[in-house]
Amino acid sequence: MSKPSIYLDYNATAPVRPEARDAVLRAFEAAGNPSSVHASGRAARDIVETARAQVAALVGVVAGSVTFVSGGTEADALAIGSAAFAGFNRIIVSEGEHDAVLETAAASGLQVLKMPLDADGVARLDWLEEALSDEGRALVCLMLANNETGVVQPVAQAAALVRAADGWLHVDAVQAAGKVAIDFTALGADTMALSAHKLGGPQGVGALVAGTRATIVRQQHGGGQERGRRAGTENVAGIAGFGAAVEAAARDLPAMANQGTWRDALAERVKAAGAVVLGEGAPRLPQTLCLAAEGFASQIQVMSLDLAGVMVSAGSACSSGKVKASRVVEAMGRADLAPFALRVSGGWASTEQDWISCGDAWLAAYSRIGARRREVA
Amino acid sequence: MSKPSIYLDYNATAPVRPEARDAVLRAFEAAGNPSSVHASGRAARDIVETARAQVAALVGVVAGSVTFVSGGTEADALAIGSAAFAGFNRIIVSEGEHDAVLETAAASGLQVLKMPLDADGVARLDWLEEALSDEGRALVCLMLANNETGVVQPVAQAAALVRAADGWLHVDAVQAAGKVAIDFTALGADTMALSAHKLGGPQGVGALVAGTRATIVRQQHGGGQERGRRAGTENVAGIAGFGAAVEAAARDLPAMANQGTWRDALAERVKAAGAVVLGEGAPRLPQTLCLAAEGFASQIQVMSLDLAGVMVSAGSACSSGKVKASRVVEAMGRADLAPFALRVSGGWASTEQDWISCGDAWLAAYSRIGARRREVA
Repeated sequence: MSKPSIYLDYNATAPVRPEARDAVLRAFEAAGNPSSVHASGRAARDIVETARAQVAALVGVVAGSVTFVSGGTEADALAIGSAAFAGFNRIIVSEGEHDAVLETAAASGLQVLKMPLDADGVARLDWLEEALSDEGRALVCLMLANNETGVVQPVAQAAALVRAADGWLHVDAVQAAGKVAIDFTALGADTMALSAHKLGGPQGVGALVAGTRATIVRQQHGGGQERGRRAGTENVAGIAGFGAAVEAAARDLPAMANQGTWRDALAERVKAAGAVVLGEGAPRLPQTLCLAAEGFASQIQVMSLDLAGVMVSAGSACSSGKVKASRVVEAMGRADLAPFALRVSGGWASTEQDWISCGDAWLAAYSRIGARRREVA
Repeated sequence: MSKPSIYLDYNATAPVRPEARDAVLRAFEAAGNPSSVHASGRAARDIVETARAQVAALVGVVAGSVTFVSGGTEADALAIGSAAFAGFNRIIVSEGEHDAVLETAAASGLQVLKMPLDADGVARLDWLEEALSDEGRALVCLMLANNETGVVQPVAQAAALVRAADGWLHVDAVQAAGKVAIDFTALGADTMALSAHKLGGPQGVGALVAGTRATIVRQQHGGGQERGRRAGTENVAGIAGFGAAVEAAARDLPAMANQGTWRDALAERVKAAGAVVLGEGAPRLPQTLCLAAEGFASQIQVMSLDLAGVMVSAGSACSSGKVKASRVVEAMGRADLAPFALRVSGGWASTEQDWISCGDAWLAAYSRIGARRREVA
């Protein structure tokens, strides 16, 4: 008999919600190309526009503000490319940004400046204010919540600074969406990236939300889809699943607070054993825990827990199966802890028992490491 | 009781095959990020690599030649961007290319030359040979089969010319794949674009196949997915559906010949009534019929047939619900017929009765138009 497995790696990808799965299946039945003028085409168009309204509602904007793309990475690229087209000639990125932002900025050919994080993983707005006072209109990329630590960034405050400097604020909300309430307008963002699969929708679909100050200029050329903002036949079923997942995620937001209680209970257990919790002094997503215990290497933790049937990750999952020292933890001034960082992240189907079992497995693995060290000493 | 609807618009999008739908559902159950090292991640990775082998097999290449992307449009863009990066400084495109190729080429900033079509819709290789003799290494984009006429292009012959001129041949095989057998190596292509939804897979997923002479340079930046050739979490379920659809399409290739018989029977009926069949003198996909009857405007045909429960299209579907005169028919020197072109395209679930019913509906609508004209006269 195989042991029951416990999935606590929602920040890498969330299991597909039943509502999303059903919406995908319904869309498969409709079987049309939204650009076709006949009945099937119109049915497909209706599906896409229903989902657009659902996604728009999640962040409090009108449907026309939403452009569907193939995922969070493409959404970030569409925002950065549009800002570059608009003449913004420098990019300020926080050191906590996802590779999708950092590498797209690096590839843009524009000047890139890195906004440092403080010890809690919060972007330094004092640094931002000074940087914005330099010459040149800036695109500022500040994520809403960090994928590794869950630390929620001071986006609204950053927006005020960016607005005063006539800049463009791009907010990667891929990790925050569906975990905390988001009000696009109150945050003051110009563009915002969303991804379906982090909140229980299918992989391969995302959206860029744009405010009235931002003009989206397509980066992928061809047909006139998405009102000229993104060429290529729409992923109708994926978009339908995204819309359904978003609606379910919004409904489940109050329950997400439970994850915070269970997460904090796990944090107390690992801290009592000697681990450090990163970003604990800052506001965080309720379901993300980033911990580190000196001498307990990230990859050993991930593998030990995997053997015990508990799936977690070491920092970002977005490389190719390799476990690297956490860049984000390093940026928090804790390079000493970076090789030992572990990310535990729950979500819509996670139970209190999942968090308890994760703690049991982690403590057992950590005590074995300790015993081995004592033997060696 | 609503009338049974007949779908003959496969070149716009094909209904999802049951094998693809089942593969998508199974992938949803696996629920992992292929970059994760734990059990769910490894399961997701296995799904992606199985599909990669399936897609590679369809065109006779090794799995490592396949890069998964979000669709045919992105595949074309990845090829063109990679060629531009490799220093190719001019692009030769056939006038029959899809907007995904034409508009990406136009946006590249490189010199773009248009290879004319002959009266049957076949690209003029004599013109190509002369163009290749000019200065500068050329990227040549020649589709395998045209989306509007179904005309199969002389790709292998073009490849010999391109190879002799040290060029790069990109083949958009989005419409041909799953309808005729494809041997990437025998065709002599350097890169080839494929799309899942045209052959019964889900929308939102495609692939770029690259030969040994082509180096794929990622256009979407971020994580190290697809061996650094395309950043962003893989669309695991979509890729699984693509692989399953490809396998079913390969199995069904012999049956596709039936579509040719039924298509030709419809062609005879409409020709007897006075219509012209475009591209009839050239080799064509078995399931595509492009016809035109002077005075019977494309949009009137599409709407009349839609009212009769028959879904077809006027040229390419890739604009935004608008019916425009066919650019491809114009390029064949029949600008006079372009406003009257209609595309009928069958596929894996199309029956002989579908083609007959389409003919009945078309003839009935056309005779009503004729009667109205006689009344006016």
